[in-house]
Amino acid sequence: MQHYTHINDLDSLQKTVAEAIDLKNNELQFKTLGEGKTICLLFFNNSLRTRLSTQKAAQNLGLNTVVMNFGSEGWQLEFEDGVVMDEDKSEHVKEAAAVVAQYCDIVAIRAFASLTDKEKDKAEIVINSFKKYAGIPVVNMESAIGHPLQALADAITMEEYKVVHKPKVVLSWAPHPKALPQAVANSFVEMMQLQDADFVITHPEGYELDTEITKNSTIEYNQEKAFENADFVYVKNWSSFKDYGKVVNKDKNWTVTADKMKLTNNAKFMHCLPVRRNVIVADEVIDSENSVVIEQANNRTYSAQIVLKKILENL
Amino acid sequence: MQHYTHINDLDSLQKTVAEAIDLKNNELQFKTLGEGKTICLLFFNNSLRTRLSTQKAAQNLGLNTVVMNFGSEGWQLEFEDGVVMDEDKSEHVKEAAAVVAQYCDIVAIRAFASLTDKEKDKAEIVINSFKKYAGIPVVNMESAIGHPLQALADAITMEEYKVVHKPKVVLSWAPHPKALPQAVANSFVEMMQLQDADFVITHPEGYELDTEITKNSTIEYNQEKAFENADFVYVKNWSSFKDYGKVVNKDKNWTVTADKMKLTNNAKFMHCLPVRRNVIVADEVIDSENSVVIEQANNRTYSAQIVLKKILENL
Amino acid sequence: MQHYTHINDLDSLQKTVAEAIDLKNNELQFKTLGEGKTICLLFFNNSLRTRLSTQKAAQNLGLNTVVMNFGSEGWQLEFEDGVVMDEDKSEHVKEAAAVVAQYCDIVAIRAFASLTDKEKDKAEIVINSFKKYAGIPVVNMESAIGHPLQALADAITMEEYKVVHKPKVVLSWAPHPKALPQAVANSFVEMMQLQDADFVITHPEGYELDTEITKNSTIEYNQEKAFENADFVYVKNWSSFKDYGKVVNKDKNWTVTADKMKLTNNAKFMHCLPVRRNVIVADEVIDSENSVVIEQANNRTYSAQIVLKKILENL
Repeated sequence: MQHYTHINDLDSLQKTVAEAIDLKNNELQFKTLGEGKTICLLFFNNSLRTRLSTQKAAQNLGLNTVVMNFGSEGWQLEFEDGVVMDEDKSEHVKEAAAVVAQYCDIVAIRAFASLTDKEKDKAEIVINSFKKYAGIPVVNMESAIGHPLQALADAITMEEYKVVHKPKVVLSWAPHPKALPQAVANSFVEMMQLQDADFVITHPEGYELDTEITKNSTIEYNQEKAFENADFVYVKNWSSFKDYGKVVNKDKNWTVTADKMKLTNNAKFMHCLPVRRNVIVADEVIDSENSVVIEQANNRTYSAQIVLKKILENL
Repeated sequence: MQHYTHINDLDSLQKTVAEAIDLKNNELQFKTLGEGKTICLLFFNNSLRTRLSTQKAAQNLGLNTVVMNFGSEGWQLEFEDGVVMDEDKSEHVKEAAAVVAQYCDIVAIRAFASLTDKEKDKAEIVINSFKKYAGIPVVNMESAIGHPLQALADAITMEEYKVVHKPKVVLSWAPHPKALPQAVANSFVEMMQLQDADFVITHPEGYELDTEITKNSTIEYNQEKAFENADFVYVKNWSSFKDYGKVVNKDKNWTVTADKMKLTNNAKFMHCLPVRRNVIVADEVIDSENSVVIEQANNRTYSAQIVLKKILENL
Repeated sequence: MQHYTHINDLDSLQKTVAEAIDLKNNELQFKTLGEGKTICLLFFNNSLRTRLSTQKAAQNLGLNTVVMNFGSEGWQLEFEDGVVMDEDKSEHVKEAAAVVAQYCDIVAIRAFASLTDKEKDKAEIVINSFKKYAGIPVVNMESAIGHPLQALADAITMEEYKVVHKPKVVLSWAPHPKALPQAVANSFVEMMQLQDADFVITHPEGYELDTEITKNSTIEYNQEKAFENADFVYVKNWSSFKDYGKVVNKDKNWTVTADKMKLTNNAKFMHCLPVRRNVIVADEVIDSENSVVIEQANNRTYSAQIVLKKILENL
């Protein structure tokens, strides 16, 4: 594997999940694989899980790790071609990406959606510029439209907890006070499209994800109907794609409660975190035995580690 | 030792001090003890000595170290139970603590007092939430009401410099332009209560520390009288506990000068740093041969290292 | 070598350049030299290349590395003697420098010019205070008036690309929207004064660098004339030294274009980066085969690594 910027960069999702679970059982088994090599983690946005789990994964492989908060420790980058750079942006990504590549062997990047310019966000300008100009493997630590390390961790978690061969998996929108990106939902959908599962997306009207991503995935506007007999309920807020980046609905009827979970087949509750308690999900659900959110977070380490391992083996 | 959040978490202060001095003489003698293990340092507030010395201590033990500035690199945490989280706080400490624990073996936390809500500060809500929800050892890098790594470094320093078996030790308040926490003073008092010493606290009226901490420690409102025959003068500003978090007095008569030091038994001058020169202490005192503030700072490494060693041995 | 705060701290520039190129060919040949030792990188200002390349250099030598952003993670320092510290500055550099030295073996510092107080900037107050009070080797990662790690990287780059024994090297000012320090230009001039080259500085009138630095170096106010037959064109903006820290000219006629490069002897284009495209230099020049800016950035690693190696060997 050269880059990991999309779930489809994996040769086989199922095989990768199995390898990640094997890694998890003995996380230091490749502890010298990255020796003498360096990964740079570049954060254009804040992070907790991704920041810590990716460092942990890198350390488990013996990689040197350098972390940089691009905004506060560096400066603004220009991404457009041919611009006269006499405004706020101090450096063009052409130089920045090529320069970073001089000091590391792999670069991992977090750069959220603007939520203001749909076309720019869809163009994945930060991730794609680094792919174009850095000339080294690029790992997506959540980009404008995808979060494939999260989706892989989600797949690992479902593999660990599934009790039927072909589970019913529901991706449910839930309310949130702020406008959030669609990245996690997008990558979850794309990951589910690679799974042998009965997959349903549920959200209020107006919250349809990009149809280029959802394709033929089933959409059910009645949340309760969607929950019926579900084995996994994956909850996440996202802002509107149609009315791009807007919060068009904060309907608390979509908060996931114990009553709604009773409609399921004793479903596991999943969320990528951070989660707003009693807005996205009631305390009673996230504190229940069916909540697997902490193990999901734990699997972020093995999701990153298997990805870095595959990249290192290909260097 | 499981956690180190209070000086009383040590089995024996005296034995620990002796072990720390032994470590200091050969700081790499346990350089593989932490191999394959990770410590996360979470800073909710700024830091210089603690930031560098704790990293140094961890590296001396072979631990991987991950540093995170929670405020600027992450987001605000919710600590209250049952809250509808639709305001500024993005994640509950229940998840944040449990998640951090997935990526490290020990978590060290700096979270200062609010100085606005006495009850919340006394409840040590950040440290205690991590102890409750993380499920891994927690180290206090200065909490709302205590700074036990500093107190242990202070004990090491006094052991190194004491010339009589039972020294007279004075903790003196001194003026400062801003409202500072009581944490350092509190932990110093609690540490001194475990020592065989003649211990006196001196401060202006209105600056009494929490009596649940000072207990029967001697308080002398006349600074000069307190200094008489002292072997160690430990100086520190703190804001009022009674009129909580307020600066009720900036009396420069309390600044420690050479004339006042002449009242002592050639006392060593101690301060945890950072120190405001010519406000807390005159240049002539901190620049004198009796000032041991730099060695005190140096001992922060061995204070942290002996604590981490004990925790690692118990993992 | 004890400190590296000025290009003249090198015994021999030519010998050091040769050693750096040898290191570059086998960068891990001294990978255990720094074992058990620690370097602290203290940033008073933002950084990309310096931040990453110095960490990379330290890791290549087996050094532990601790990075601290002094402004955002620490607090303001006082540098004046005898001050009553009752304003915004929390700690005196006397303590801060001595304390940092307790936790590391080498300290590297970035502290830009104020551009408001020429005398203070010339006094190199931050770097010199650390040299005075830390008692450990100090490395300059760009100070008020110099950037000797950059100048050494520039010398390495010119050695790699030169085709004649005594090249013509032009340092050309170019326009920029903001006021920038003279540090890079100063150190480049001082480095060139140690080289066997035909060296010319070109800039508009009013942009003369400190004559204590330029000494007898040739100054040519006609940029096109300066470019004639040049083998290397090193471009950089700086603010006025005479009218200290001011932008007295933004003349776009000084932007480096392909037409101007045609006047040269097929010159290599150099810039320390970050660079404002189409302000400092036209896209057509920086994107041409004659642009060596990325290799120049790459050489920052070996510039730092040879310096750290020499310091470690002298510890």
